[in-house]
Amino acid sequence: MDATDLRRRLEEARSARLATVGPDGKPHVVPITFAVDGDTVYFAIDAKPKRTTDLKRLRNIAANPAVSVLVDHYEDDWKRLWWVRADGAARITAEGAQAERALDLLALKYPPYRHARPPGPVVAITIQTMTGWAANENPAR
Amino acid sequence: MDATDLRRRLEEARSARLATVGPDGKPHVVPITFAVDGDTVYFAIDAKPKRTTDLKRLRNIAANPAVSVLVDHYEDDWKRLWWVRADGAARITAEGAQAERALDLLALKYPPYRHARPPGPVVAITIQTMTGWAANENPAR
Repeated sequence: MDATDLRRRLEEARSARLATVGPDGKPHVVPITFAVDGDTVYFAIDAKPKRTTDLKRLRNIAANPAVSVLVDHYEDDWKRLWWVRADGAARITAEGAQAERALDLLALKYPPYRHARPPGPVVAITIQTMTGWAANENPAR
Repeated sequence: MDATDLRRRLEEARSARLATVGPDGKPHVVPITFAVDGDTVYFAIDAKPKRTTDLKRLRNIAANPAVSVLVDHYEDDWKRLWWVRADGAARITAEGAQAERALDLLALKYPPYRHARPPGPVVAITIQTMTGWAANENPAR
């Protein structure tokens, strides 16, 4: 999978999973909606009600900016499996022009965000490495 | 989401994402196929060809057994979003009765594993906590 293909699959994916690390050295993984802008992945804390307001992802990032973002495709025909991972450094951008741009990109990608723009904060992840795998480029033995 | 519902959604999911932590304190996330047996989640290292043989997940687990496993459902109708996360401790079980049982369960769940039983090793994750969220149980404001 070349760099163009990695990027295309990441950009076109509708959801991803964000892994962070807690101060206790344990991993934490949550689904996110996101938008890609150049070498940056953005996601926002939105107002979808949760049983509890879980901001562990933000506490983890504030203490350790290393994150891993995965998009993948599963189906029972394993010849069609693929995944792309973007590893990078995250920072919380509560307001300002970058946060506004991120919210614009998110609203462009996700209709629900047009009706209810997420209050934020926005997290900006600078992609440092991208890795991927696709079964159809690595035919079964 | 109650304990029965958490468990049902985990067991029925066809793929999950496994997050581990590297010795450098950075998270790593990969898709896995898996089977649940009581309070244990199993996955196997299989022989699907990869561009490189990436066993970083195993190196990470050997150094730090803390893992986080996520199953989730995305669709553009956000009223149907849900996710379930199982956090626990992983250990690598290269052989023996437990590994054989894990491979049996994986073969039962995934037809491709019936034709090509994965060579392993098998990883056994003891679930310590389960957490979940479903939009339809937390109606939009």
